[in-house]
Amino acid sequence: MASLLTVGSWRADAWVKAFHTAAPGRTFYLYGRDEYDPAEIRYAITWRPPAGLLPSLPNLQAIFNLGAGVDGVLADPDLPDLPVVRLVDDTLTGPMGEWVALQVLTHHRRALTYLAQQGRQEWEEHDQPVASQVRVGIMGYGILGSHCAKVLTTLGYTVSGWSRSPKPADVPLHVGAEGLPEFLANTDYLVVLLPLTPQTRDIIDAELIGQLAQDGVMGGPVLINAGRGGLQNEDDLLAALHSGTLAGASLDVFQTEPLPADHPLWTAPNLVITPHAAAPSNPTAVSRYITGQISAFEAGKPLQNVVERGRGY
Amino acid sequence: MASLLTVGSWRADAWVKAFHTAAPGRTFYLYGRDEYDPAEIRYAITWRPPAGLLPSLPNLQAIFNLGAGVDGVLADPDLPDLPVVRLVDDTLTGPMGEWVALQVLTHHRRALTYLAQQGRQEWEEHDQPVASQVRVGIMGYGILGSHCAKVLTTLGYTVSGWSRSPKPADVPLHVGAEGLPEFLANTDYLVVLLPLTPQTRDIIDAELIGQLAQDGVMGGPVLINAGRGGLQNEDDLLAALHSGTLAGASLDVFQTEPLPADHPLWTAPNLVITPHAAAPSNPTAVSRYITGQISAFEAGKPLQNVVERGRGY
Ligand SMILES: NC(=O)c1ccc[n+]([C@@H]2O[C@H](COP(=O)([O-])OP(=O)(O)OC[C@H]3O[C@@H](n4cnc5c(N)ncnc54)[C@H](OP(=O)(O)O)[C@@H]3O)[C@@H](O)[C@H]2O)c1
Ligand SMILES: NC(=O)c1ccc[n+]([C@@H]2O[C@H](COP(=O)([O-])OP(=O)(O)OC[C@H]3O[C@@H](n4cnc5c(N)ncnc54)[C@H](OP(=O)(O)O)[C@@H]3O)[C@@H](O)[C@H]2O)c1
Repeated sequence: MASLLTVGSWRADAWVKAFHTAAPGRTFYLYGRDEYDPAEIRYAITWRPPAGLLPSLPNLQAIFNLGAGVDGVLADPDLPDLPVVRLVDDTLTGPMGEWVALQVLTHHRRALTYLAQQGRQEWEEHDQPVASQVRVGIMGYGILGSHCAKVLTTLGYTVSGWSRSPKPADVPLHVGAEGLPEFLANTDYLVVLLPLTPQTRDIIDAELIGQLAQDGVMGGPVLINAGRGGLQNEDDLLAALHSGTLAGASLDVFQTEPLPADHPLWTAPNLVITPHAAAPSNPTAVSRYITGQISAFEAGKPLQNVVERGRGY
Repeated sequence: MASLLTVGSWRADAWVKAFHTAAPGRTFYLYGRDEYDPAEIRYAITWRPPAGLLPSLPNLQAIFNLGAGVDGVLADPDLPDLPVVRLVDDTLTGPMGEWVALQVLTHHRRALTYLAQQGRQEWEEHDQPVASQVRVGIMGYGILGSHCAKVLTTLGYTVSGWSRSPKPADVPLHVGAEGLPEFLANTDYLVVLLPLTPQTRDIIDAELIGQLAQDGVMGGPVLINAGRGGLQNEDDLLAALHSGTLAGASLDVFQTEPLPADHPLWTAPNLVITPHAAAPSNPTAVSRYITGQISAFEAGKPLQNVVERGRGY
């Protein structure tokens, strides 16, 4: 009844320790370090597993993803037809609200301008519209997006959302391809918290950027993406930042991570880059969540937060 | 029945225009530009009026302050014994919540570190405690402080407050000199939103900084001051930033404003400087608020938000 752990480039020691602490009686093998018999593995606990690994485990019963986004698991063309459980946890939701609020405020409150002035020892105040004059559109109104909507509403922003299906929401919600043009036309700051699926890949391109509101009080639209790098066309982003079509952007995710040292995005104007650090998975909380689900599953209870394979998230 | 307007270093044109728009039938003189008969002035509408100006107006009936902090008016030793009305307005409260949230998040989410890394084209993630592990203490739990508490609570921070007198509050509230040591000992991030009074002048000094929590998850206390520069001993702040006693700071206010170009604070480490821009008074909203109060006053109604001269705010 062992579990196999793959943690990508994350710190393996911390993760192994957290799982041993959360369930001292269980066996966890670390992929790439420990030897294991594939037949022994019942559970895969994974972040971006190498393609082919999961299909090679004959007695696998469930796959637990170490993050909220399961694109890394679903990318395996031979993925066995087993439940994939994604991560839903306050220690992920809260930090995403922090990161998104920080990025929206950074652009709205002209933090880069003031930091640059500070570097020149220059005292100059700039016009400052209040938050209610800035329309923030949240693309992907799920667990993370709806929490960010709450935080941004408390800060005073005018918030709306976009999702695949209709549902009750605290802010005006636009739905599907049909609802997209109106959503974009009324968005000054676009916050992207979509999962990466065949439907959403490359969705943020020059055409979409061109549909954002051009008449906002801040002088141009801003893009904030913490979903996945695969959602964005990076050539289009670069061009939009250099031409000023985008007044600013904050990116936590990139097509290639780590972002290569010579990538032109590093030096694009009015761009804030963070190293996929918006809402890091917390080893203590995540290991408790997953081992708790395993125990419940073995007691005959249904798994929670199982991905719908058909829709890709 | 004329009003005299003094706007300090603010943009006079915008202010004069706003008052003429808010009350087209009334007369507003701009101090330093327009000629006026002192006997004609019934209302002074002021930001940091020159000492001696208000006592020189024989028929003055009320003084309206263009900001929330009235220290600039009360500084006049010959100030006539007339009602001083301070500014309370959503267009001030909201932006202060934005600014404080931005500064707390900037330090907590290590924005300066990530921006520096970005400048070196360097991808490195750092440990990131969740907001609930950071204890934010709000010194001055009034109109602005209590709004900031609400915003920071929604973001997940553990918030407490400090005020002069006991009152109902959404967060644990410490009161007066007696409550100060416990308040400070449990504060990682100190947000200062006090008025400047004889009791609060120079309150933020080496001794107070030394009483802040030293055992916080972020590795050292952070000071965030948007109250007044006169609250802070700037030599002590400089020393604390250079020694690391303060892990960081954000200052919007200074003993001398504009901060002189050769002031050593400009280059202190881990410090964010903004040019008294946290919550700028909004000409449209403020002129409506003040002319509305004047009309009500002339109709025999009591003035709102009158300062208690005895306590200095
Ligand atoms: N950068 C980081 O540190 C970090 C950390 C965690 C997560 N993430 C990313 O954030 C993503 C969202 O996480 P979550 O927990 O909020 O997921 P979630 O609860 O599943 O929400 C996803 C949202 O996107 C919408 N959506 C999906 N496909 C769509 C489509 N084709 N058209 C329109 N809307 C679509 C969904 O619509 P419905 O409501 O109709 O289903 C839902 O509102 C993850 O997938 C991951 O990629 C990043
Ligand atoms: N940087 C900017 O752009 C900007 C903009 C607006 C305002 N401000 C500053 O912010 C200050 C606060 O504004 P506000 O509207 O929130 O004022 P407020 O409603 O009068 O609140 C002041 C708070 O400070 C507390 N306080 C005053 N003296 C104290 C003392 N000696 N010991 C302990 N607590 C004391 C008060 O206690 P009680 O509750 O017991 O009365 C109250 O909680 C203004 O005075 C101004 O200096 C700065």
